[in-house]
Amino acid sequence: MRERLRVAMVGNGFMGAAHSQGWRVAPRFFDLPAEPVMELLVGRDPDRVAASAEKWGWRDSSADWRSVIERDDIDVIDIVTPGDSHAEIAIAALEAGKHVLCEKPLANSPAEAEAMTLAARAAAERGVRSMVGFTYRRLPATAFARHLIADGRIGDIRHVRASYLQDWLVDAESPMTWRLEKDRAGSGALGDIGAHAVDLAEYLTGLQLASVSGVLETFVRERPIAGSSSGSIAGGGSGEATGVGTVTVDDAAFFHGRFDSGALGSFEATRMATGRKNALRVEVSGSAGAIAFDLEHLNRIEFYDGSAPGTEQGFTSIIVTEPEHPWVSAWWPAGHLLGYEHGFAHQARDFVEAVAAGEDPRPSFEDGLHVQRVLEAVERSSGSDGAWVGVARGSD
Amino acid sequence: MRERLRVAMVGNGFMGAAHSQGWRVAPRFFDLPAEPVMELLVGRDPDRVAASAEKWGWRDSSADWRSVIERDDIDVIDIVTPGDSHAEIAIAALEAGKHVLCEKPLANSPAEAEAMTLAARAAAERGVRSMVGFTYRRLPATAFARHLIADGRIGDIRHVRASYLQDWLVDAESPMTWRLEKDRAGSGALGDIGAHAVDLAEYLTGLQLASVSGVLETFVRERPIAGSSSGSIAGGGSGEATGVGTVTVDDAAFFHGRFDSGALGSFEATRMATGRKNALRVEVSGSAGAIAFDLEHLNRIEFYDGSAPGTEQGFTSIIVTEPEHPWVSAWWPAGHLLGYEHGFAHQARDFVEAVAAGEDPRPSFEDGLHVQRVLEAVERSSGSDGAWVGVARGSD
Amino acid sequence: MRERLRVAMVGNGFMGAAHSQGWRVAPRFFDLPAEPVMELLVGRDPDRVAASAEKWGWRDSSADWRSVIERDDIDVIDIVTPGDSHAEIAIAALEAGKHVLCEKPLANSPAEAEAMTLAARAAAERGVRSMVGFTYRRLPATAFARHLIADGRIGDIRHVRASYLQDWLVDAESPMTWRLEKDRAGSGALGDIGAHAVDLAEYLTGLQLASVSGVLETFVRERPIAGSSSGSIAGGGSGEATGVGTVTVDDAAFFHGRFDSGALGSFEATRMATGRKNALRVEVSGSAGAIAFDLEHLNRIEFYDGSAPGTEQGFTSIIVTEPEHPWVSAWWPAGHLLGYEHGFAHQARDFVEAVAAGEDPRPSFEDGLHVQRVLEAVERSSGSDGAWVGVARGSD
Amino acid sequence: MRERLRVAMVGNGFMGAAHSQGWRVAPRFFDLPAEPVMELLVGRDPDRVAASAEKWGWRDSSADWRSVIERDDIDVIDIVTPGDSHAEIAIAALEAGKHVLCEKPLANSPAEAEAMTLAARAAAERGVRSMVGFTYRRLPATAFARHLIADGRIGDIRHVRASYLQDWLVDAESPMTWRLEKDRAGSGALGDIGAHAVDLAEYLTGLQLASVSGVLETFVRERPIAGSSSGSIAGGGSGEATGVGTVTVDDAAFFHGRFDSGALGSFEATRMATGRKNALRVEVSGSAGAIAFDLEHLNRIEFYDGSAPGTEQGFTSIIVTEPEHPWVSAWWPAGHLLGYEHGFAHQARDFVEAVAAGEDPRPSFEDGLHVQRVLEAVERSSGSDGAWVGVARGSD
Repeated sequence: MRERLRVAMVGNGFMGAAHSQGWRVAPRFFDLPAEPVMELLVGRDPDRVAASAEKWGWRDSSADWRSVIERDDIDVIDIVTPGDSHAEIAIAALEAGKHVLCEKPLANSPAEAEAMTLAARAAAERGVRSMVGFTYRRLPATAFARHLIADGRIGDIRHVRASYLQDWLVDAESPMTWRLEKDRAGSGALGDIGAHAVDLAEYLTGLQLASVSGVLETFVRERPIAGSSSGSIAGGGSGEATGVGTVTVDDAAFFHGRFDSGALGSFEATRMATGRKNALRVEVSGSAGAIAFDLEHLNRIEFYDGSAPGTEQGFTSIIVTEPEHPWVSAWWPAGHLLGYEHGFAHQARDFVEAVAAGEDPRPSFEDGLHVQRVLEAVERSSGSDGAWVGVARGSD
Repeated sequence: MRERLRVAMVGNGFMGAAHSQGWRVAPRFFDLPAEPVMELLVGRDPDRVAASAEKWGWRDSSADWRSVIERDDIDVIDIVTPGDSHAEIAIAALEAGKHVLCEKPLANSPAEAEAMTLAARAAAERGVRSMVGFTYRRLPATAFARHLIADGRIGDIRHVRASYLQDWLVDAESPMTWRLEKDRAGSGALGDIGAHAVDLAEYLTGLQLASVSGVLETFVRERPIAGSSSGSIAGGGSGEATGVGTVTVDDAAFFHGRFDSGALGSFEATRMATGRKNALRVEVSGSAGAIAFDLEHLNRIEFYDGSAPGTEQGFTSIIVTEPEHPWVSAWWPAGHLLGYEHGFAHQARDFVEAVAAGEDPRPSFEDGLHVQRVLEAVERSSGSDGAWVGVARGSD
Repeated sequence: MRERLRVAMVGNGFMGAAHSQGWRVAPRFFDLPAEPVMELLVGRDPDRVAASAEKWGWRDSSADWRSVIERDDIDVIDIVTPGDSHAEIAIAALEAGKHVLCEKPLANSPAEAEAMTLAARAAAERGVRSMVGFTYRRLPATAFARHLIADGRIGDIRHVRASYLQDWLVDAESPMTWRLEKDRAGSGALGDIGAHAVDLAEYLTGLQLASVSGVLETFVRERPIAGSSSGSIAGGGSGEATGVGTVTVDDAAFFHGRFDSGALGSFEATRMATGRKNALRVEVSGSAGAIAFDLEHLNRIEFYDGSAPGTEQGFTSIIVTEPEHPWVSAWWPAGHLLGYEHGFAHQARDFVEAVAAGEDPRPSFEDGLHVQRVLEAVERSSGSDGAWVGVARGSD
Repeated sequence: MRERLRVAMVGNGFMGAAHSQGWRVAPRFFDLPAEPVMELLVGRDPDRVAASAEKWGWRDSSADWRSVIERDDIDVIDIVTPGDSHAEIAIAALEAGKHVLCEKPLANSPAEAEAMTLAARAAAERGVRSMVGFTYRRLPATAFARHLIADGRIGDIRHVRASYLQDWLVDAESPMTWRLEKDRAGSGALGDIGAHAVDLAEYLTGLQLASVSGVLETFVRERPIAGSSSGSIAGGGSGEATGVGTVTVDDAAFFHGRFDSGALGSFEATRMATGRKNALRVEVSGSAGAIAFDLEHLNRIEFYDGSAPGTEQGFTSIIVTEPEHPWVSAWWPAGHLLGYEHGFAHQARDFVEAVAAGEDPRPSFEDGLHVQRVLEAVERSSGSDGAWVGVARGSD
């Protein structure tokens, strides 16, 4: 009989719904070497977490993540809480011998992320696996784009343009949320969506940022505090305002980066890009071609093949839904589009595969730490008049 | 405790996977008045259906649909077999008091569809519900487009351009499949995808086709017969050719239609549209605006509002992922795209809602019969030198 | 010294401005074997034509086309009047030994077009050249698309989708114009823009339509008569309504066509496509690829190369502004877009080249006659319940 | 009789062809208050300039710009030489009482640009006009976008993303040209195309950059020297390489800018954006909407109106070819696209209008100086580790 991987997931917000769907769906489409079992949902409020567990299909629920980590009948801890609790939970889980899948950003500070990485390394030596959840690596379009670039199809990379554009803060009356508090969220657009732009740019190119120069900006510095909370991305309330709160994170982050290869990158993360709902865009320009991706058209990539005859060159809009494209054969016939949440099913599948194979999955905590260090370097550059700041490496 | 609706699904091909996903996912995102239970999967080959049942998460399997229909512990029969068996199964199920969800096309002939419609009417009087599975009605984009049109936002409709373009038969060496045999499939592109174009055009506009004039064409009349079957949309084999088969259905169907209002429609269904993977497109032109939809961009509609100032008119590309758009609030934040299969979750949800409310869901068998009659009229027109042929109505 | 070609242009409406620009600009960018001289502008109203001549840069003007044709100092007659006078002027000019460039449609009836073709053939034997002005053949994008197709890059052609969508009649209060009177215009959308769709489809594919089946429709049958005329495409008035006129031409024409090769075509010409300003679109689907063009993006073609690896196939958006693309080297660096009127400069250039080389230019009057016969066949089919009507050939 | 404005144009490269077309065409479509006369073309090589003059339609030519400036029969000096000669010619012309139209960038250094601005101010007091040629302000799309923004349609501006992407240096074997030599060209992508991005961003928003932080990069530092020169944008040779030259300008410039209002800008100018031929793109995000423009689709703007109902918001693709759009009524009916060179006709028209009206046209030399100062500040920031550098103002 097939091995079972019993999962407990900590956290029950928007990401909880997405991860639940990943665990639920992955075994129905992929032939997995082990069967993930949605054992326990963990949250702070017992009633709310019990309701979520029933709705999302978890067998049971708990309000005490520490006791869950001690349980013998749990193999995997999936962490989808806000960033300020990632380090504590993840380190405890790894030390208890549980495999850990942790949502991005890995932590709210490089110090926490470093501690997590050390714990992950120690755990790996005992066969315990860890992974950070940059799910945009798990789209057929991005994985196929990486494959083309790794194959040399666009030659040497000269520059990269990466932006993550959202607009949910455009309205100055949109209320306060934990995502706008530095204590809870670590940073604003920078860490929430800029982290995705950095990770995706690095994933696609296989390069790493070595230094950055940038600027953070908060356009709306005070926002109303709302009475009751809603399920929107903001996680803010929708009731009547009960006061005014101070926004302590950035609305937008603009930065340049120098990759280790010498290539240049231009990055923009903003929640003020009016009309752009979820536009994570990366364009990589090389000596022999180019590739562009836009999350608002997530089943496509645009590929410019510089080796084509001069009169026939142009960006080819490839619909990445052929059976030969990554993960696609498990789904529908060509041309039948996948959605946002499929990345979570692919993530669950790849995590299970790695655990079953006894391999360390990617992106690793080390990858997550690196992104965290990039974000910190951007903050320092912004506070240093735009000076170029090196991204910390290894154990320095 | 909440009522349960125990479902048995007959058929285990590509549509079986899609319907399974619908039943599985709907209760995890929507608050349903009854809980659908994936009780039984029914197929011809006992081993294969047992394997599918396990993979897709059905509790049990059976190779005998007739006995299943007799069981007391089944409330719903979901039919996803090829069209030639729809009538027999559906009529038996309805007579046995089971609610029926039947994939499109409703049947392979108007005669069968008429019998099914009579059975559905009789069943409805006994509180037994039936629905036909035109899932493209269940996308937020199409449902919202219908809403705008019904609200008069594009005025009086003058004409409609509807096409469903695929390209999986472009290769003349692509092998035979049951979808290319008139006995099994009823027709080719006409019934398989033209049916969607007709239904969607009518759904969006609220109009019905009264007469048609058209032409069917088979560009490749002989194809190799392959040894073993694959899971592609073609359902054809991928092994070495074992002979040559005759294609007895259309590769493409082009027709014009006159709606009951006097509006004109232009329709094209083809499996020979090189490079078009799954492009179901409808554009409706009215006296006050226009709306365009393309399944290859299924989260969007293009809306032209003729009441805007002259210098500001243009097609607005609306990303239909706001919480206020149909079904969307159950899913992800704005800008997070849905995929092909979400239509099946919405279908499951709407079916359950209607059954629980004791209402007849749409599209009804009568709607399916009407589409069937349109298709038959096209075939007759094609065989009559393009003469306009009236679409049969009511019990005529 | 270089030969001069002295041009007299008959007609001074919208097309007069476009042709003037063609004659003016062509010698400034192309090295022509003969120099076109804008000698005479001819119109009905002496004052108006004199004013137009001065504005557009013609040396002199005249109100008597018959006397112009007799003049020894005129080499070319360029006809841009409404279709009802084409035959008379063109035949007289050819008989007087003048080379003739005649706007499309060639005439308002096949009978007239046949007489013109006979005159053109007789003139050709005396070294006198004639051409009909389907300028959309003269865009780099369309000419390059034809080149790819002729090279076999899309294989055997299965079907063609061609539409010409405009919306200037959507408003039911838009006034009467000569373009809505059958006596003056011959037909409506069919002849005005459907002619372009037919010619372009045939030019791109190298095929000819052998038979058609179609329907014409007039959605708004009465329109106000305005007091004074304007310079809009409609040529209608903008003053207060002075009565009601009857529209005697089609607002829209939908038809199918069978090419001589067996390929199928779907055609739509309409002035009721709300929001579509000037969308002449052709998509050609072949056994090895496909090509799509849209006049609203006139510097581009979309090319699907079926010989690319399966995972890399997609429509390539080629910006047709490289120096190696047709006509482009005379203009600007790559990426600098051409506009609508460049087709008229290319037409002037090609006409001059052919005359200087003693060759018969294309599209010939015979090509224009063929299009006329297609249009007539569509009208007859529409009047015969959609029956397929053969397109007359040769001298039959 | 109408006043005449006798023009002498200095320079006969690619820009000479574009300006010639502007002077030639403007009076044929617009009713101008004075008639521009293409009197004299001035270049260094007498034979070559005589040939250009004949081809482009100038009445005469000269190889001595100094003597031309002294002539009484010249009213306007149009300067289209490389930037290193702008100051000398423009100042001499203004002092001689000639109106001056000078191509961008105004000069190769702020010092030169300041001298020119002083000369322009002095000349203006004597009724002598001057203008710098940022022609991308003269497209209907950009002018209309500015109008919408000035009308408050997108509210308070938060940020701007501007990029000018070309790819003609991607090939490392593409030869040296004067555009790659700092002495001749002043800078590389920064001054050539970055200047357009800065000017267009400021023109659209009505804001001015107050400080910048950026980085310049030369990816390919040595290139072959070719034997003979061609007419490409590079102005480089196409013959066999005769040695290796050192590139002394930037291939790409990335910078951030702070506008006087506090808004942020992200700028990128590059000749290494593989596959992007001429993509000048600006997107302006405001508190109430957004506007995006792309020169590769120069007849369109994308307008996001935040005041639309929530479910109907989206980017509206406005085809800016309605008669009510700027300059359009002079041209063709709606939907007939304009090209790159129309900007030069509009520029000629606006220059003539201002001169005839005795008004100072925009963009003024002061506007050109400001752009020059922005470029210099970027260079200084790049040389100062990315530090923010204030843009010089007024006479400081």
